[in-house]
Amino acid sequence: MSRYFLELSYSGTLYHGWQIQQNAISVQEKLNSALSILLQEELDTVGAGRTDTGVHAKQLYVHFDSNASILSNKERFVHSLNALLPHDIAIKRLISVHADAHARFDAVKRSYEYRVHFWKDPFLRNFSWQLKDRPSIELMNQAAALLIGRQDFSCFSKSHTQVFTNICQIEHAEWIAENGSLIFKISADRFLRNMVRAIVGTLLEIGFSRQPPRYIQEVIASKNRSKAGTSVPACGLYLTEVVYPYIAHN
Amino acid sequence: MSRYFLELSYSGTLYHGWQIQQNAISVQEKLNSALSILLQEELDTVGAGRTDTGVHAKQLYVHFDSNASILSNKERFVHSLNALLPHDIAIKRLISVHADAHARFDAVKRSYEYRVHFWKDPFLRNFSWQLKDRPSIELMNQAAALLIGRQDFSCFSKSHTQVFTNICQIEHAEWIAENGSLIFKISADRFLRNMVRAIVGTLLEIGFSRQPPRYIQEVIASKNRSKAGTSVPACGLYLTEVVYPYIAHN
Repeated sequence: MSRYFLELSYSGTLYHGWQIQQNAISVQEKLNSALSILLQEELDTVGAGRTDTGVHAKQLYVHFDSNASILSNKERFVHSLNALLPHDIAIKRLISVHADAHARFDAVKRSYEYRVHFWKDPFLRNFSWQLKDRPSIELMNQAAALLIGRQDFSCFSKSHTQVFTNICQIEHAEWIAENGSLIFKISADRFLRNMVRAIVGTLLEIGFSRQPPRYIQEVIASKNRSKAGTSVPACGLYLTEVVYPYIAHN
Repeated sequence: MSRYFLELSYSGTLYHGWQIQQNAISVQEKLNSALSILLQEELDTVGAGRTDTGVHAKQLYVHFDSNASILSNKERFVHSLNALLPHDIAIKRLISVHADAHARFDAVKRSYEYRVHFWKDPFLRNFSWQLKDRPSIELMNQAAALLIGRQDFSCFSKSHTQVFTNICQIEHAEWIAENGSLIFKISADRFLRNMVRAIVGTLLEIGFSRQPPRYIQEVIASKNRSKAGTSVPACGLYLTEVVYPYIAHN
């Protein structure tokens, strides 16, 4: 069997997240079924990570195995797969990888963006969270700087998840202003379930001066989800990048 | 009666254009009905211009007359109106103007954008036209430069329209490349029905080398719609700016 990576993007608005599940429509289900039609065999995919209901992905990689000869013309395969998929899921590339390459375990870095805006905007619905008031980007960035490094982020994890460790290495965390919106950009080796949305909720508390920037250290030290801010809505969240040592950025 | 301007924007995807009509949902109908509820009187609006089915507006002004006292708190009025309007129509400002200010006749400049992209993109559906091949921006800009000035543009007008003249003064017409998309920006004192979409269709013919750049002069001189290129789809078109001598840009 040959192993392949697919690079894809999707608008998550109409899906119950990435992962295939009973009784709800997922991005993975749509992808698996389009692949199975094209390859004429039952097929499963392994994604770099999950996204929750309504969360978008500008870049996600999945792997799958197949010997189908149709895969030899990569460009034509991508074109056919895009034609079979709905308008809100798009394939960018098909890449041949070595037989034990793994879309989830081999990812060394993941990046997310969270977008907020402040005026009703007919083009941003489902793609950014509308806030009434403008938080202080300076205060939020003072706090964001304290996230950097290798720390136990249990405080930002959904309770009752079964992972072996809550330690993540955050490489970058910063708010930038762009066209009247504020965008939070964060990169780490891994993320816990619901982590970015809980971090953004906590940073907004600080941006609205309900807590000082150093409060974020207190939250982290507590390892207690209830100390962190409320999780913000899914519509503003994008998985933007997944990095592998052996995949060249396109 | 006092006269007011409203500045608004909308995503045109779900509407049969700006103008109110029988048996089809228009942006104007939604606006008039929200205004009538809020002002508790039957109300009509006059827009700066029409947009066709599926065309978007980043900026449009309308005028209306009313003596309602609720209009004295402009910020609160805008907030209430936005809450009544659907998600894809947004009010930016309410502006007091002199009694004979006219949203259509007083506009001295209008600008449009047309967006095309070249890869399936889950975030651009309804907001940009996807082309398979990439036209030459250089050839299209050589031709676009020949549009500038005061000319009879009958060749780009929908047949059988009843306007007193087809002469328009085009001030600016240029393609720019942005994030993998191509965007055509055009400004003029006025536009004829369907004009931008017919111009873009003609420029694309030139961009794909089916005609040389100077062909556009031949099309204009012919005053014949059938010489121009096919009109491009509505989804890529945005009314982006309307200018009045007495309204400060926000």
